[in-house]
Amino acid sequence: MKGSPDGKEKSIERSAIYHISEHNYAYAVDEKSLKIRLKTKRDDVDEVFIYFKNLYDHTEAINRKAMDKILSDGISDLYETTISVEQKRFKYYFELIYPGGNIFYTSDGFMSEVTEINCFFYPYINEADISRLPSWAEGEILYQIFTDRFYDGNPANNPDKTRAFDELPDKDTYYGGDFEGIIDRLDYIAGLGVKMIYLNPVFLSFSYHKYDTVDYYQIDSGFGNASDLIRLSDEIHRRNMKLILDGVFNHCSSSNPIFKDVLTNQSNSKYRDWFCISDFPIDEILGNYDSFGGLVPGMPRLNTDNSEVIRYVIDVAIYWTRLLHLDGWRLDVADEVSHDLWIQFRRELKSLFPDILLLGEIWNHSSRWLQGNELDTATNYKFMRAIHDFAQGRINSRTFWNRINANKMLYKSQLYNYLVNLVGSHDTIRCRTLLNSVDLHVLVMAVNMAFEGIPLIYYGDELCMEGGFDPDNRRAMRWQDLDTECAKVLRELSRFRAESEVLKKGSLIPVYPEEDRVIAFCREYAGEGIYFIANFNEKSVELRNRYGIGSLIHGEAMIEDERIQVKGKKFAIFHRKHKTDQQ
Amino acid sequence: MKGSPDGKEKSIERSAIYHISEHNYAYAVDEKSLKIRLKTKRDDVDEVFIYFKNLYDHTEAINRKAMDKILSDGISDLYETTISVEQKRFKYYFELIYPGGNIFYTSDGFMSEVTEINCFFYPYINEADISRLPSWAEGEILYQIFTDRFYDGNPANNPDKTRAFDELPDKDTYYGGDFEGIIDRLDYIAGLGVKMIYLNPVFLSFSYHKYDTVDYYQIDSGFGNASDLIRLSDEIHRRNMKLILDGVFNHCSSSNPIFKDVLTNQSNSKYRDWFCISDFPIDEILGNYDSFGGLVPGMPRLNTDNSEVIRYVIDVAIYWTRLLHLDGWRLDVADEVSHDLWIQFRRELKSLFPDILLLGEIWNHSSRWLQGNELDTATNYKFMRAIHDFAQGRINSRTFWNRINANKMLYKSQLYNYLVNLVGSHDTIRCRTLLNSVDLHVLVMAVNMAFEGIPLIYYGDELCMEGGFDPDNRRAMRWQDLDTECAKVLRELSRFRAESEVLKKGSLIPVYPEEDRVIAFCREYAGEGIYFIANFNEKSVELRNRYGIGSLIHGEAMIEDERIQVKGKKFAIFHRKHKTDQQ
Repeated sequence: MKGSPDGKEKSIERSAIYHISEHNYAYAVDEKSLKIRLKTKRDDVDEVFIYFKNLYDHTEAINRKAMDKILSDGISDLYETTISVEQKRFKYYFELIYPGGNIFYTSDGFMSEVTEINCFFYPYINEADISRLPSWAEGEILYQIFTDRFYDGNPANNPDKTRAFDELPDKDTYYGGDFEGIIDRLDYIAGLGVKMIYLNPVFLSFSYHKYDTVDYYQIDSGFGNASDLIRLSDEIHRRNMKLILDGVFNHCSSSNPIFKDVLTNQSNSKYRDWFCISDFPIDEILGNYDSFGGLVPGMPRLNTDNSEVIRYVIDVAIYWTRLLHLDGWRLDVADEVSHDLWIQFRRELKSLFPDILLLGEIWNHSSRWLQGNELDTATNYKFMRAIHDFAQGRINSRTFWNRINANKMLYKSQLYNYLVNLVGSHDTIRCRTLLNSVDLHVLVMAVNMAFEGIPLIYYGDELCMEGGFDPDNRRAMRWQDLDTECAKVLRELSRFRAESEVLKKGSLIPVYPEEDRVIAFCREYAGEGIYFIANFNEKSVELRNRYGIGSLIHGEAMIEDERIQVKGKKFAIFHRKHKTDQQ
Repeated sequence: MKGSPDGKEKSIERSAIYHISEHNYAYAVDEKSLKIRLKTKRDDVDEVFIYFKNLYDHTEAINRKAMDKILSDGISDLYETTISVEQKRFKYYFELIYPGGNIFYTSDGFMSEVTEINCFFYPYINEADISRLPSWAEGEILYQIFTDRFYDGNPANNPDKTRAFDELPDKDTYYGGDFEGIIDRLDYIAGLGVKMIYLNPVFLSFSYHKYDTVDYYQIDSGFGNASDLIRLSDEIHRRNMKLILDGVFNHCSSSNPIFKDVLTNQSNSKYRDWFCISDFPIDEILGNYDSFGGLVPGMPRLNTDNSEVIRYVIDVAIYWTRLLHLDGWRLDVADEVSHDLWIQFRRELKSLFPDILLLGEIWNHSSRWLQGNELDTATNYKFMRAIHDFAQGRINSRTFWNRINANKMLYKSQLYNYLVNLVGSHDTIRCRTLLNSVDLHVLVMAVNMAFEGIPLIYYGDELCMEGGFDPDNRRAMRWQDLDTECAKVLRELSRFRAESEVLKKGSLIPVYPEEDRVIAFCREYAGEGIYFIANFNEKSVELRNRYGIGSLIHGEAMIEDERIQVKGKKFAIFHRKHKTDQQ
C-alpha cells in the first residue's frame, strides 16, 4: 500500500479483492435476482458499489447499488447485495471507494475507467439455478435417535442378550430400543419443541448401529416391521413433526446379497462393477477392495459412479419416501458418494417430493455439495469445533466469531438458517463428557439453541448425558434424568426456540462485550430483536447495555439502569428495544 | 503488515491468501491425484509447502511437498502442485514461508501450530470427478466455416438470388456455398495444418446463417443433403481431420413446427412448456416470450430446464453424431442453456462417443461450465480482447500478460492447451479490419499460432480478409487472395504449428524483453523449447539473448552474438538451447 503525505492511504490491497461470477460469489436467489459478493481486506475500503444492467443492453444507462458489509473474519470483509434485472441476463462491475479515491474492479481487473466490455457476466438464470430450500425446516430443531438405545416399547422384538438400560455399552451391545418405544416417547420429544426426528439407520443389518446394510428393502426386525415404522411416521406427523431417515449409500454390509454375489461369482458376478474392485479374486478377509474409509472390509464401498448403483439407490429412496411419507434423508458419508449420484438423486426425489430435505453428513467445508443441485444442507461440524474450542478456553470470543464468520463466508447466505449445528453426535465424544462440566454443556447447548441454523440434539444431550468415544457415546437413554435441573433448563430453552420466529429465521449479529469468555449476539427478524448472552466465566460479569436490551425473557440476569449482570456459567435472553449496527 | 526493526517483514498479507477445497483450487487429475492451488499476494512469500495424507490416517506421519509458483498477474501469485495418496481420500494444510518466519494456513484459518483436525478435506476421488479432455484435440488448429460463404461446389442447390462471390453481403444474402464446395477445398484446408473443421449451423433454416433452426433432423437443402454431409465427413476423416457441427440448442426458429404448434394451440399445445412463456396468448409479433438475448422473437428460447427438451436435444445430438461420425459439437450460447442439460448431454454423449469434443460458445469467464461434468472447453474471447488491446496500443505487454495470467488463474491447468483462442469470429468485426493493418493482423495471428490453446481460424482470416460488423464480417471467401504474401506467411506458420508438439502441448512462459510493444514467450514440452518474438513496433528491435535462444526456425530475425534483431512488424520463432526460469 502506498501512503500519501497526509497519512491517508492512496490505494487498497488489491491482492485481497476476490470475486468470481459463479459459485458462492454470484448465484441466483429467484427468477430475476442474483446475490453478488465481493471480498476485501478488512476495513480497507469505505464503500463498495455494484453497477449492473441487462447483458444485451448496450445503452449508456446502468444501475448502481451500494453493497452491504455482511461479514468480517478479522482478516477479510465480505460485501453482498442482491441485484435484479427483468431479462435475467446480467452484466456488472464493482466500484471500490477508499479514503484516497476510487477504483473499478472488472472482469479484466482493476481499472480507473470501465466500459461495458469489461463487465462480469452472469448470462442467464435458469430455473434449476435457483437454490430452493424446504422452508418448513428453517431454523427448526432436529432430534437424533439411535433407535436401539432410545426406548424399548416392545420387548417381544428384542434381540438375544439385550442389556438393561442402565448398563454401559460395549461394541455390539443391544438394548432393545424400537419404533414402539419412540412412539411411546413422542410426546416427550414434541415437548422439547422438536420439529424433525432423525433416526439412525433402520434397515436390515447384523450390527446394532446398522450402518452396514444387509437389505435396503427390509426393516430390521429388532426395531419392528414396516407397519410399525409407518405407524411411527403417522404418529410423528400427527404431532406436526417430521421424519428423516438415515440413508447409508456410500457402503453396505459384506453380508448384503449383492456383495455376496460378487464374493461367490467374482468377476462373473453381475454386480462386479457395483463395488470398487481393482483385482480379482476379492476376499473378505484380505479386504482387497475399497470399503468405508478404506478400512472396514465388512463395509464394502458402493461404486456410486455406476449408473446401476445410482438407479438402485434412487429407487430405494423413492420407495421408502413414498411408503413412509418421509420428510427427509440424512445422507451418510455424503462427501464420498459421487456428485453424479446426488445430482440425479435430488432431481428425482425433488420432482416427486418437492418439500423433502436432503441433509448430508459432511465433516468439513461442504459448499461443494450445496450449490443447489445436490444436497440442501449439511452437518456443520465447524460450528461444533469452534464452540468446543471456546468452551474449553482454547480460543477467545473474537477468535470464535472469526472462525464462525470465516465459515459463513463459504456458504450462500440463505443457508445460514439451514446449516445443521451440532455439539456432538454418535461419532464424537459426548459434549458433556468432553467439557467435563454440566454447566459448560448447558451453555454450549444454549448457544446452539439461540444460534442461526438447524440445531441438532443428539438424544440425551438434553439430559446432559455422559459418554466417551464410541461405543460409550451411544449409551442407553437416561430416562431417570428427565427432571434434573439441567434437563429442565434445556427443555425450557428448546421450547423457547421452537416458539421464536426470531431465533428460527432471524439474522445473527455477533457482539463483542467488554468481558471475554462471553458469547453474545443479537438475532433480528421482521423488525423484532433478541439479545443472547452466555457467560462462560466462573464469576458473574457486568456488561454495559450498549445494545438496546429490554426485558429479560429467558434465562437468568439482572438489569439495572444501563448495566446487565449475568452470573457465572449462566445465560440470558432479552428482548431488544431497537436495532443496533454490528459492533 | 508489520515491519520489524531491521526492515524485514514479519508477516504476510493474510487477506490475499485464497484456497478452497473444491472448484479450481482442489480438483482430481487422475484416480489418486489432486491438483491443489493457493493464491498469495505477489512476491509476498518465499515458499509454500503442502502437508498431506490419507484422510483416515491418524498417525503422526505426513507428506510435505513444495508448491510451484505457476502464475503471477502482477497482483497475486498462484501456487500449484499435485498430491497423491493411495486411498484417494485426502486431508492437507499449507505452510507459508516468508522472510520473517512461517505460518500454517488451515481449514480453520492461520495457525502457528496445526493438528490434523485443522486440515482441509478432499474426501474422495470418484471416477466422474476426474476431468478428462479429448487428447486428440490438444493444441490443434480449428477452422471455422460459414458454409454459404465458403465455396460453391454445386450450383444446382443454390438458393434463389445467389450473389457472386465478389459482391458484398447484406443481411440475408446467399452465395451458394455448400458441402460439395467444402469437399472441393479440403486439400487447401488440410494444407493449413488444420485438425478440426467446425461448420456454422447446417440444419434446415430460412436464414443464410441458420442459427434459427426450423428442423433439427433435416439438413438445409441449400448446402446439400445428409448424404453430401456424410461424404464431407468421410473426406475430412480420410485426411485425418475432424468434423465439428454447431449445436444451436438455446433457441430455435419461430417457424419451427414445435413453436408453431404453440402459436396455434397456445396453452393447449403439448409443447407449451418447451419455451419460456409467462402469459398466454403469445404472439410472434409482440414477441411476448423469451427469445435469443430476450430480443429476437423470431428465435424463441427453448426451456432447457424442461426434461422433454433435454431429451429432445440429446437425441438430436446422438442422431447426428452417430450418422455423421461427428468428432465434436460447438455449442451456441452455451452459457444460457441450463447446467442440467449440459450435465445430461455430456453424460450420454461421452458414454456413447468417449472422444467427442464439447466446445461452448462463451464470451466471458467460463470455468462454471468447465468443471468436468459439462463442457470440455470454451471460446476464449478474453484472449482476443487482450491481444487486440495490445495490438491497438491500449495496453503494454506487461498488462497483456497480467490479463492473460489472471484469466488462466480462473481455469484448471490442464485446460490451458484446450481453450479456444480466437482473434475474431462471425460475431465480431474481422481482426484485419479492426486493426486496420495487414501487418498487425499477421502478428496477432502469429501470436495465436504460437500460443498455448486451440487456435481458431475464422475462414479467410488466414487470407487477411476484411470485414466490418455483421453482415460485412461474413463476406464470401476471397479465393483470389490465396497467393498473397500475407496468406503465404500465415499458411506456413499454421503448418509449422501443426507439426510442432511443443507448440501444441507445451507450457507457456511469458518473457518481458527490454523493449515494449513486443510479445515474447517460451514454450516447453518434453525437454524441447521454442522461443517466439513478435515485434509490434514500426522499427526493428534489438534484444539481448537472455533466454538461451538458438537457431531461427521460422519467421524473420538476425542473431548475432548475444543480440537478436527483429524487424518492425515481424515475428520469429527460435529453438531454445536450454530451459530458463520464468522472468
